[in-house]
Amino acid sequence: MRFGVALFPSKQLQDWVNSYRKRYDPHYSLIAPHLTLVNAFEATEEEAETIASQLREAVKNHEPFMLKTSKISSFHPVNNVIYLKVDPQEAITALHKDLNDLLESPGMQYKFVPHITVGQKLSDDEHWDVYGALKMQGIDHEEEIDRVHLLYQLENGQWTVYETFRLGKEAEL
Amino acid sequence: MRFGVALFPSKQLQDWVNSYRKRYDPHYSLIAPHLTLVNAFEATEEEAETIASQLREAVKNHEPFMLKTSKISSFHPVNNVIYLKVDPQEAITALHKDLNDLLESPGMQYKFVPHITVGQKLSDDEHWDVYGALKMQGIDHEEEIDRVHLLYQLENGQWTVYETFRLGKEAEL
Repeated sequence: MRFGVALFPSKQLQDWVNSYRKRYDPHYSLIAPHLTLVNAFEATEEEAETIASQLREAVKNHEPFMLKTSKISSFHPVNNVIYLKVDPQEAITALHKDLNDLLESPGMQYKFVPHITVGQKLSDDEHWDVYGALKMQGIDHEEEIDRVHLLYQLENGQWTVYETFRLGKEAEL
Repeated sequence: MRFGVALFPSKQLQDWVNSYRKRYDPHYSLIAPHLTLVNAFEATEEEAETIASQLREAVKNHEPFMLKTSKISSFHPVNNVIYLKVDPQEAITALHKDLNDLLESPGMQYKFVPHITVGQKLSDDEHWDVYGALKMQGIDHEEEIDRVHLLYQLENGQWTVYETFRLGKEAEL
């Protein structure tokens, strides 16, 4: 089965992103707005507990951090994906590297561009229409991220959370 | 915002339940198949961390337990809800009572009938058709449950996991 690691921003930011995903993201009903830290990888249900315990240890070396967004961007021409760009500060890139090293993740063919998808699988026309309308908006937002989630995918495509991991050494207290 | 506490059964059981929910449950895309332990209640995003830390402590007094299902049942005539009945053994009723006492949950107007919803909001005709077809099936299934989840609801109705809590004193090791 397929697993992945992601973080969910605040409800406020998720609601804002969903107001666009509802129309522009076919994955809208499969998972809440998120930032992917480890791309989907294959493992068995039996392996989940081992993976979870490795992640539980690894996140202790990463303190909660501020997630900052400033603008809407696009992966065109690689993909017609419109996203909320997240500042690639040290805390998030270090977390991404650690988790991917740990899980020997194959999802490293692209440079890590931390983002929250707003629209995807758009036709070229749709892409330019939506991107044109959205990129004028400044999205100056900042919030603390203190946890990440290991998820797995059901046969219908929906993602369910297996376990949450709170960042930082103090998290167990 | 609205919070709730639920457990998710194994992927195998979720996939089986979803094969029916897809057609018979309008909440199909809002949350994965689950067993509700604490009905939806109101709290602020700021209160979430306090609630989570209370739950973190409370679940230490409850060890992982076996969840057993044996048949399909219905809440008709109270509600046209068809569900997978979960044996109300001591472990799950004690967990339910503890969590509801802790959260002063208002969702106690019904006797606790542990269940996983398969279909709901059906017309009377649909209800009898589906129930008639399903109740003949024996669903003898048993699996270990070792965690529960605090969830919150987005404006679009979708539920996101705030935190998972692993049951039992040994869970932190």
